[in-house]
Amino acid sequence: MFHVRVDRMEAVMAEPAFGARCSAALADRGPLCVGIDPHDESLRAWGLNTDISGVEYFCMTLVDALAGQVAVMKPQSAFFERFGSAGTAVLEKVVTRARSAGTLVLLDAKRGDIGSTMQAYAQAYLDPISPLAVDAVTATPFLGVGSLRPMFEAADAHGAGVFVLALTSNPEGNAVQRARRKDGRTVAQSIIDEVGNLNASRRPLGSLGVVVGATVGACRSQAVPVERQKTYGITHTTGSVGEAAHDLSRLAGPILVPGMGTQGGKPADLKRVLGEATDLAIPSYSREIARHGPSVDRLRAVARTLAEQCGEALRP
Amino acid sequence: MFHVRVDRMEAVMAEPAFGARCSAALADRGPLCVGIDPHDESLRAWGLNTDISGVEYFCMTLVDALAGQVAVMKPQSAFFERFGSAGTAVLEKVVTRARSAGTLVLLDAKRGDIGSTMQAYAQAYLDPISPLAVDAVTATPFLGVGSLRPMFEAADAHGAGVFVLALTSNPEGNAVQRARRKDGRTVAQSIIDEVGNLNASRRPLGSLGVVVGATVGACRSQAVPVERQKTYGITHTTGSVGEAAHDLSRLAGPILVPGMGTQGGKPADLKRVLGEATDLAIPSYSREIARHGPSVDRLRAVARTLAEQCGEALRP
Repeated sequence: MFHVRVDRMEAVMAEPAFGARCSAALADRGPLCVGIDPHDESLRAWGLNTDISGVEYFCMTLVDALAGQVAVMKPQSAFFERFGSAGTAVLEKVVTRARSAGTLVLLDAKRGDIGSTMQAYAQAYLDPISPLAVDAVTATPFLGVGSLRPMFEAADAHGAGVFVLALTSNPEGNAVQRARRKDGRTVAQSIIDEVGNLNASRRPLGSLGVVVGATVGACRSQAVPVERQKTYGITHTTGSVGEAAHDLSRLAGPILVPGMGTQGGKPADLKRVLGEATDLAIPSYSREIARHGPSVDRLRAVARTLAEQCGEALRP
Repeated sequence: MFHVRVDRMEAVMAEPAFGARCSAALADRGPLCVGIDPHDESLRAWGLNTDISGVEYFCMTLVDALAGQVAVMKPQSAFFERFGSAGTAVLEKVVTRARSAGTLVLLDAKRGDIGSTMQAYAQAYLDPISPLAVDAVTATPFLGVGSLRPMFEAADAHGAGVFVLALTSNPEGNAVQRARRKDGRTVAQSIIDEVGNLNASRRPLGSLGVVVGATVGACRSQAVPVERQKTYGITHTTGSVGEAAHDLSRLAGPILVPGMGTQGGKPADLKRVLGEATDLAIPSYSREIARHGPSVDRLRAVARTLAEQCGEALRP
């Protein structure tokens, strides 16, 4: 598993770490990630068939318009998986074309498992010889941040990155993410801290990041009353919504901020959510950009505007 | 999302719910799930190349030997994903052949997301028209059990099942799964309870299940000292290891128990872990079975033996 051929080793040594590549791309092109979410509604809005040919046209249009223009593109694996191997084949093309054009590809796959299975996911998405090799991938820590170690090791070996889910915007997430450990920290904070510890030896800038939703109010310490919610037929008390301030200041790694644009997040939310951890913020927009397509000019214009607005909002 | 064509509706009415199909299969063939985990070590043990042709031979041998003989087969998606679209194409064949032979296929994919993305995962794995449609899929509730709703609705519509991760055997999982909500319950217990509530209207038997590792000691109430562990360079106190008894008695749905065999779980662990919730236990073995291949006779013999041993251990 750890045997690497010398030629591979040289390639690895030559590839800068993801943290450095990501930082350079954000500084150069502005803090923006463009989500590639080929769901039926977006395909229909462009007048496309809701089949694999529609998916391919939608994605390739976005890639050809924006790869090389924006820092990061983020395909959402689920929308490809629904077409089986044909969908995966299109995802391979999307990833390859976007990377060739010089944009970092962050695959939103939210994988998480243990042992040899986690190792297989690492191989699938971070090993350069895989047909689906990307620059970085999202991972889910329900089995503990430690269970993701094979992914972290592969990232380290291949100059790639991993973004670990920490705090999401959806209210149902609180039941897990804001539960408390014995030491008083929330699950989300302990995840942020563990990822920060893994980045510690790479300060000022590691390659392991976290995912924090744009509308979570993560760094507010203002108390919000605990609400009782009726969700999907289950009445439950949401843990400690809004009570906990989450501290991202010792992360020393990139922060993906999804939920921007049509999902409700605004540039002005970024500092509120991220506090002082604004250096490596990656605000991610999907429909807000796609709805301006398929016109290449309009796609480029909206991406430029959003990158500028986010850059302005994140200025120290 | 809730519009279902009449012809589809009729097809749905004709297909019994997963809970009923699963119960019948377990009663008929014994409580056993055979994991299909084509990792390199297992391929080498059979003298196969560690490439996609080796994966296909390995999986098809297991399917041809055991589908129709055992209640459930569980391919692990990660081992196919590492070969990109070629791997997904083999997974499609494995799923189709195993289902045709009359074995229930539970895809271990551990997907979890929100909104339209979760809907796309539901479509990918539970919609009968998908090339990867299976009988049931595993799901990860880091974004809350409620976030999985599109998957539950698809299961309901198509007579399929969903197994939600609750309590895993790996020690790193405790930091999340045994954290406490405001109401004092662990995250794991709240997941079990939410799934149980969703099954409530389908008593005695719902189609939504949970995943509980064979070596967690879930139903012991015996106190185990909190340990300090050094994991991957991070020293942390594991939440409340072993302190919490987890109650599966109101689940009214199937329980997947991975980690049997070479991973350490024994038939005698089942009652300890599951308490009285033994009706719908699905102990899952992978390497313990595969290591007897590629001989079809030996594969069938070991599967028969393990199904008998588990059936014996689970007898009330």
